[in-house]
Amino acid sequence: MDRARAGLTGEPALLQIRRAVRRWLPAHAPSGRVCVALSGGADSLALAAAAVPECAARGGDVTALIVDHRLQEGSGAVAERAAGQARALGCAEARIVEVEVAGRGGMEAAARAARYEALGAACGDRPVLLAHTLDDQAETVLLGLGRGSGAGSIRGMRAWSEPWGRPLLDVRRAVTRSACAESGIAPHDDPHNSDPRFTRVRLRHEVLPLLEDVLGGGAAESLARTAAQLSEDDEVLKRLADALLARSAARGDGAGGGLDARVLASEAAAVRRRALRSWLLGEGATGLTDARLRRIDALVGDWHGQGGVAVGGGGPGVRVVAMRQHDRLTVMREAGAPAGAHPR
Amino acid sequence: MDRARAGLTGEPALLQIRRAVRRWLPAHAPSGRVCVALSGGADSLALAAAAVPECAARGGDVTALIVDHRLQEGSGAVAERAAGQARALGCAEARIVEVEVAGRGGMEAAARAARYEALGAACGDRPVLLAHTLDDQAETVLLGLGRGSGAGSIRGMRAWSEPWGRPLLDVRRAVTRSACAESGIAPHDDPHNSDPRFTRVRLRHEVLPLLEDVLGGGAAESLARTAAQLSEDDEVLKRLADALLARSAARGDGAGGGLDARVLASEAAAVRRRALRSWLLGEGATGLTDARLRRIDALVGDWHGQGGVAVGGGGPGVRVVAMRQHDRLTVMREAGAPAGAHPR
Repeated sequence: MDRARAGLTGEPALLQIRRAVRRWLPAHAPSGRVCVALSGGADSLALAAAAVPECAARGGDVTALIVDHRLQEGSGAVAERAAGQARALGCAEARIVEVEVAGRGGMEAAARAARYEALGAACGDRPVLLAHTLDDQAETVLLGLGRGSGAGSIRGMRAWSEPWGRPLLDVRRAVTRSACAESGIAPHDDPHNSDPRFTRVRLRHEVLPLLEDVLGGGAAESLARTAAQLSEDDEVLKRLADALLARSAARGDGAGGGLDARVLASEAAAVRRRALRSWLLGEGATGLTDARLRRIDALVGDWHGQGGVAVGGGGPGVRVVAMRQHDRLTVMREAGAPAGAHPR
Repeated sequence: MDRARAGLTGEPALLQIRRAVRRWLPAHAPSGRVCVALSGGADSLALAAAAVPECAARGGDVTALIVDHRLQEGSGAVAERAAGQARALGCAEARIVEVEVAGRGGMEAAARAARYEALGAACGDRPVLLAHTLDDQAETVLLGLGRGSGAGSIRGMRAWSEPWGRPLLDVRRAVTRSACAESGIAPHDDPHNSDPRFTRVRLRHEVLPLLEDVLGGGAAESLARTAAQLSEDDEVLKRLADALLARSAARGDGAGGGLDARVLASEAAAVRRRALRSWLLGEGATGLTDARLRRIDALVGDWHGQGGVAVGGGGPGVRVVAMRQHDRLTVMREAGAPAGAHPR
């Protein structure tokens, strides 16, 4: 890859990372007291190395949190090694948190859920800095595109979403590697990061390089820039949707809640669908696809007496259904077929 | 590819295409009098074959417009053949329009510009139906991602943008091929469509198939669905931006126009940047990158007395510069270095 494109500009890489942390701290952790989530890989080690002096300059310090997923032989030793590196880099504390990975949605998703839960529990009132780079952001946008549910899924990760902070979203991955090499830090290479059974790994090693080649470079930056813009767009639209939801709920007739369809109809479909989505999630919907949301929106925008739309949720033997009655949208819980009739 | 995913559902493919045209006509061409832009390829032949009966059912008819770019040996014969096929399909008229391809931005862009200009001039007051499919839409979104300027560049093509109509944006490309085969129509294979020197061809034949494989199918549909949603989002934000622009222009002090920065500051950055963009384009800016737009927006959102931002345009020896003076944003045309000092 072109060195300049990879973010390698000739200045020491660690300085670039320190600058990114320096820009991030004032708004979100002015005291300089933070946690850094440390995997032992290059990204998080470089982040820790940059955060230590930057936080010290603000009178704070860094606690390194190392999650041991206990999924691989020797994971304890990897965690211990990372903790030792964190202390050597000047972290005031390095704490290993062991987790139990179990749950729905495959091992990748389960490990992720367990990790975030453990970090959130361990951080106290400190923000947790995560070392996601511009390259991770680009992969996230591509993953979101594959899910295809609009700005919500491709706006990518945020620089701040309490308690999670991501100061490196503008920094290329190559820069973190370079910073480790410069500083004599030897990162751990997680074999998962090159296992092509993971979608993200294939996006990283196959799709993004091809896209870079076909588009003549700049694809990762473009994806990250797009994510930033869509995130800002989405915030504006979400505010409009929240206001619409409040207005249409207030104009319900008070009998059992529901939304006033005439108030909903006064707004553009893009805002209306966001309002309906957040209302239905609040009502326990678990199966909200884009197609269903559009059918529910048609109860407002294209009303001709049609029936309700099932939106999942409600537990065994119960169907949650969004429907229109006169000028009100309501959610009904209908008894479905007996649970036994639907094995699984 | 999976046949269902490719849109091949078992029903005759031409019926799917007719249904798409039938859904499109009432809103945009209720009289059924349309032009179809015909290249002689499978997509546009299938569109013409579907449009003829659907337009007749509304009391209208179809004029086929065939653009002869005269870029390849024998292009005249290809055009004549397409015109003959159009008449055989029942088009009331088939007209060949010859164009001269010349201009900036490479041959692909120049041919496209010449084609749209000729079609626009030839169509009279009829809408021009274009045979872009869901697959074309997916490619357009990926191309836009490579440019990376947010919702505006990845919202894709619209189903209606006068005089251009695209009834097939929900139809897979495989369906048009199948419709031709069913109907005994032999499409022309444009060698450009498999020439890997064109970015779009590589997106079609390399990137999209890989993305489908990595994401487990559905990538094209996801990209198209995302485009539709972002297009609706963008319309809402654009309306807010237009209103903001009107408010901030009205609150200028009347001396030489400009915008009231305090009024601009009252809105979210995502709306503000759209307003600034459309204002600056109207003032002749030609070099509006995302980075420059953000620097101009900082004159509103992060004002600390900084200088103006050059935005291109204005002709040789002149720089168009956006700047803030007290509470007003204005555009100044500055004499730059003599034209000779900037070869090219």
